[in-house]
Amino acid sequence: MQNYSAILNNIYTELNASHFRGEVANYIPELSHVDIHNFGIHLNVLNGDQFSVGNTNTPFSIQSISKVLALAKAFSIIGEQLWQRVNVEPSGNPFNHLSLLELENGIPRNPLINSGAIVIADILVSHLKNPKADFLNFVRDLANDPTINFNKNVAASEKATGYKNFAAANLLKSFGNLENDVDEVLDFYFHQCAIEMNCKQLADTFYVFANRGTCSQHKDYLTLSQVKRINAIMLSCGFYDEAGEFAFEVGLPGKSGVGGGIVALLPNTFTITTWSPGLNAKGNSLLGMQALKLFTTETQLSIF
Amino acid sequence: MQNYSAILNNIYTELNASHFRGEVANYIPELSHVDIHNFGIHLNVLNGDQFSVGNTNTPFSIQSISKVLALAKAFSIIGEQLWQRVNVEPSGNPFNHLSLLELENGIPRNPLINSGAIVIADILVSHLKNPKADFLNFVRDLANDPTINFNKNVAASEKATGYKNFAAANLLKSFGNLENDVDEVLDFYFHQCAIEMNCKQLADTFYVFANRGTCSQHKDYLTLSQVKRINAIMLSCGFYDEAGEFAFEVGLPGKSGVGGGIVALLPNTFTITTWSPGLNAKGNSLLGMQALKLFTTETQLSIF
Amino acid sequence: MQNYSAILNNIYTELNASHFRGEVANYIPELSHVDIHNFGIHLNVLNGDQFSVGNTNTPFSIQSISKVLALAKAFSIIGEQLWQRVNVEPSGNPFNHLSLLELENGIPRNPLINSGAIVIADILVSHLKNPKADFLNFVRDLANDPTINFNKNVAASEKATGYKNFAAANLLKSFGNLENDVDEVLDFYFHQCAIEMNCKQLADTFYVFANRGTCSQHKDYLTLSQVKRINAIMLSCGFYDEAGEFAFEVGLPGKSGVGGGIVALLPNTFTITTWSPGLNAKGNSLLGMQALKLFTTETQLSIF
Amino acid sequence: MQNYSAILNNIYTELNASHFRGEVANYIPELSHVDIHNFGIHLNVLNGDQFSVGNTNTPFSIQSISKVLALAKAFSIIGEQLWQRVNVEPSGNPFNHLSLLELENGIPRNPLINSGAIVIADILVSHLKNPKADFLNFVRDLANDPTINFNKNVAASEKATGYKNFAAANLLKSFGNLENDVDEVLDFYFHQCAIEMNCKQLADTFYVFANRGTCSQHKDYLTLSQVKRINAIMLSCGFYDEAGEFAFEVGLPGKSGVGGGIVALLPNTFTITTWSPGLNAKGNSLLGMQALKLFTTETQLSIF
Repeated sequence: MQNYSAILNNIYTELNASHFRGEVANYIPELSHVDIHNFGIHLNVLNGDQFSVGNTNTPFSIQSISKVLALAKAFSIIGEQLWQRVNVEPSGNPFNHLSLLELENGIPRNPLINSGAIVIADILVSHLKNPKADFLNFVRDLANDPTINFNKNVAASEKATGYKNFAAANLLKSFGNLENDVDEVLDFYFHQCAIEMNCKQLADTFYVFANRGTCSQHKDYLTLSQVKRINAIMLSCGFYDEAGEFAFEVGLPGKSGVGGGIVALLPNTFTITTWSPGLNAKGNSLLGMQALKLFTTETQLSIF
Repeated sequence: MQNYSAILNNIYTELNASHFRGEVANYIPELSHVDIHNFGIHLNVLNGDQFSVGNTNTPFSIQSISKVLALAKAFSIIGEQLWQRVNVEPSGNPFNHLSLLELENGIPRNPLINSGAIVIADILVSHLKNPKADFLNFVRDLANDPTINFNKNVAASEKATGYKNFAAANLLKSFGNLENDVDEVLDFYFHQCAIEMNCKQLADTFYVFANRGTCSQHKDYLTLSQVKRINAIMLSCGFYDEAGEFAFEVGLPGKSGVGGGIVALLPNTFTITTWSPGLNAKGNSLLGMQALKLFTTETQLSIF
Repeated sequence: MQNYSAILNNIYTELNASHFRGEVANYIPELSHVDIHNFGIHLNVLNGDQFSVGNTNTPFSIQSISKVLALAKAFSIIGEQLWQRVNVEPSGNPFNHLSLLELENGIPRNPLINSGAIVIADILVSHLKNPKADFLNFVRDLANDPTINFNKNVAASEKATGYKNFAAANLLKSFGNLENDVDEVLDFYFHQCAIEMNCKQLADTFYVFANRGTCSQHKDYLTLSQVKRINAIMLSCGFYDEAGEFAFEVGLPGKSGVGGGIVALLPNTFTITTWSPGLNAKGNSLLGMQALKLFTTETQLSIF
Repeated sequence: MQNYSAILNNIYTELNASHFRGEVANYIPELSHVDIHNFGIHLNVLNGDQFSVGNTNTPFSIQSISKVLALAKAFSIIGEQLWQRVNVEPSGNPFNHLSLLELENGIPRNPLINSGAIVIADILVSHLKNPKADFLNFVRDLANDPTINFNKNVAASEKATGYKNFAAANLLKSFGNLENDVDEVLDFYFHQCAIEMNCKQLADTFYVFANRGTCSQHKDYLTLSQVKRINAIMLSCGFYDEAGEFAFEVGLPGKSGVGGGIVALLPNTFTITTWSPGLNAKGNSLLGMQALKLFTTETQLSIF
């Protein structure tokens, strides 16, 4: 029997003393003001146990972590045909995302890179009656928490500066892989990324992926097959150009966001979230990566 | 002494019998309706002689040929500092224009590929009081013909479908290499490309590049050094991925457009234009390329 | 409790009726003669149970599967410093392996692509007294079977036609990431790939990776941490450009070879091997991929 | 009438005072010992006038300049079918030469990049009875100077360290674009590059390209069409990634080598050579590039 409480406390204490915490993302102006000293870890064990250390009650911008939730929603709506519009291979190459899109005729490498997530957003805009409201409700239901919300300022900030996303969406459109208007899809996408949660809410939301498709309120959202596939994609593609490194060092499916959040999970066992807004050179939370590495080393729990 | 008239007539007669004339560009809906049987050649010798065969009085959309004119205007305004925002190397690679932009930090390879031409358009939007009107007047002055105009339908058609250009402009913006709004720059760019001329007008307009910077009305527009540089860029970069082929087969500086026009010139000697709307697989006028190859072979006139 | 025997029999019966079995690899002449009708599956459960269907006693060329064994040996010798010479990220891109090597200064993307495996071979040539004999003995010990051997004809056939590997090795050498002579390293590498095993032997050999570093004879070869890392690399990088697809469809760490073999494993539970020499378009055994997909679907066993 | 003597003297005097002369190539050990203070310019006017300043009698390694001579010989032997094995487009991209070869199925971008020159060498090995001796005699005949020779030490030095060329040749072989053995082709290639000439000999050798295919001894070597094509290729592809820059700044067809030599020519008018072993960041002679730029600026002679 693991003493999770002691393990988490030790990790927190050790890492929270770090002077070097990376850099807060500054390409979205609204995110650049977050205090770099925030640090929290929350563990949600499927047996019902919950463990929190540090700042786990402050909401942060989940950013790219939302891509997993959007994928889950789109997958549950349109099923396998989703894979005709987006691939499941790692992107491999950090410096030419748009190039790969050109080389591969507008089919994004996977649903967790920006271009792939924009295709997923397009699917949701096509299939949801009130896309933004419906998606927000889906997330609130997963977390069993109606207080979760968009941060409209963050969404507006991304819209005003998100030229690379406009470039990607237009390129997808040029290849016929975007059904709706660029502006409408990106408005949805920027809101999706601007959802805010704290560590506990995020761990609750991802419970469904650790629990074979059933959320903590015993409602079925995804088939076991769908959950396995989403977990496989998180493992292969969840950490930008550091996906291999994360699989290698941590050994869990997971997803990070430039807001400094990371969520990871061991199927049938737990979900765990970390938040520390300082990022490493590859855009993943520096303390968060270290915390998860220590956690799986200490507990010897990983999928491998 | 060359018998230009006989040479041009022979070329016209031989090529005009061709059944295979390539394909009319269909990615701009408004251009797809042009009759593929149009074919004309116009030669403007600096000594004042003019030779015309075929359909040289029908205006066509000059499209990318306008990039040379925009470059000339921007170069004459801001001089050498222009090269801080755009390079002068061939692009080489047809399938990853945006990728190169990513790899090379938002500095387009040269001013005649789309991303480079968009940077030039941005410079003109910044420096011209009434960008569209002022640029049109510049072109009219070069040609000494006030009837030259934009085709507003073509400009609108490009705006409605030009997703790749929106992608490129947003990517440039993300790298800080676009001063003005994407929409404003592209509105100018789509109008610039939608200028219409016939073969004779186009040959007159490019007289300035064959005549060391002085137009047919004896007005100086560019220094000799600037003209040489623009001619060098046309030779190296004027024909998309077929630039080497054109230098190799024709041996003249020139520029083509997807409207089916080509203009080429021998410094101090002549300008020559062809128009045939059917394009080869690389996007250059099929009959036009053949006509120019026959012309330089027959006359033994080339820069090499 | 799973009825493995019935499950395997059903899979075998269903797939063995397939008319379309892909194409036998023909780029190594010696391999092109193998009968495409061979098909076998062997399951080695850690509790000692063994299940065989089809042709599981005929040796085949393990080819790239050997890369995992070479990695294990090199990792056990030099430890973490191995990662200074080879990365752990998926390669992503099928059409420019050498290009990535150029872009990333001679550091291969991972140890399971050819260039990475050549670096691993170089490490073994540097550290083993009699590289070929010592490595063969390592494999025999893992399998507890002294009859395993090289096929010298296959090694010679690869040496005579392996121009791409010579290209890769010379490129590595040009970047200073090869200590020994190109010819010496490739002689080792071609022998390593030319090891022959049958399905049962291969499943026995990989027991160590399912059993936390301890082989079936209770001898420790690797630390738990090392085994986890190797399993993570297999999952992310074991199936060329189909790695994401395999993680997605099968959900197990594994490795394929162009000889038509595949090995996969569930940590703490089993190893499973398939052999069918017909390959799909991506170079992985067509029936083998289907068999493993059916097996994890039927048993609901995967790491996700 | 130009005062060439005064112009060349002024250029020499101005540039020879430079403290910053770039870096002598050090990747071929044998070349790294050349004194960086060497500097010479030789002008060979087709009317028979010759002008020399500085060190124009010391032989240097012509290196890549030899590629033009090998191309001329191969082109004169097999004619147009040469272009089935090598393209005529600029390479564009400095960091992935081998990648382009992979992407474009083993057809090098042009005959002046290393992979293209290796294909040309292969053609000469196939068609010449005594490849090295016959090629040397061809060069001696062009220059009308039987003292020109290989530097065997330089050839050996390149063979011992030319891993990138071995990589390229093996990659070509893997695509079926090399008829002879890699070692035999590269032995020829390394000798070809190791020819030594002084500035005057080099200017004499290239007389044939300025004089419509006829050498100074009135012997015809190439057709006018072939000469024009070779000149076009020099202009588009003669200066690595600086080809556009050279066309832009100098405006003449030319070729540089890492030995510090540059040769350029104005058709029907002159050939000019410079030698200064210090290279700029792109691998072209620093003083040589400046000298040629000053020369064409001062004389207002260029092809544009």
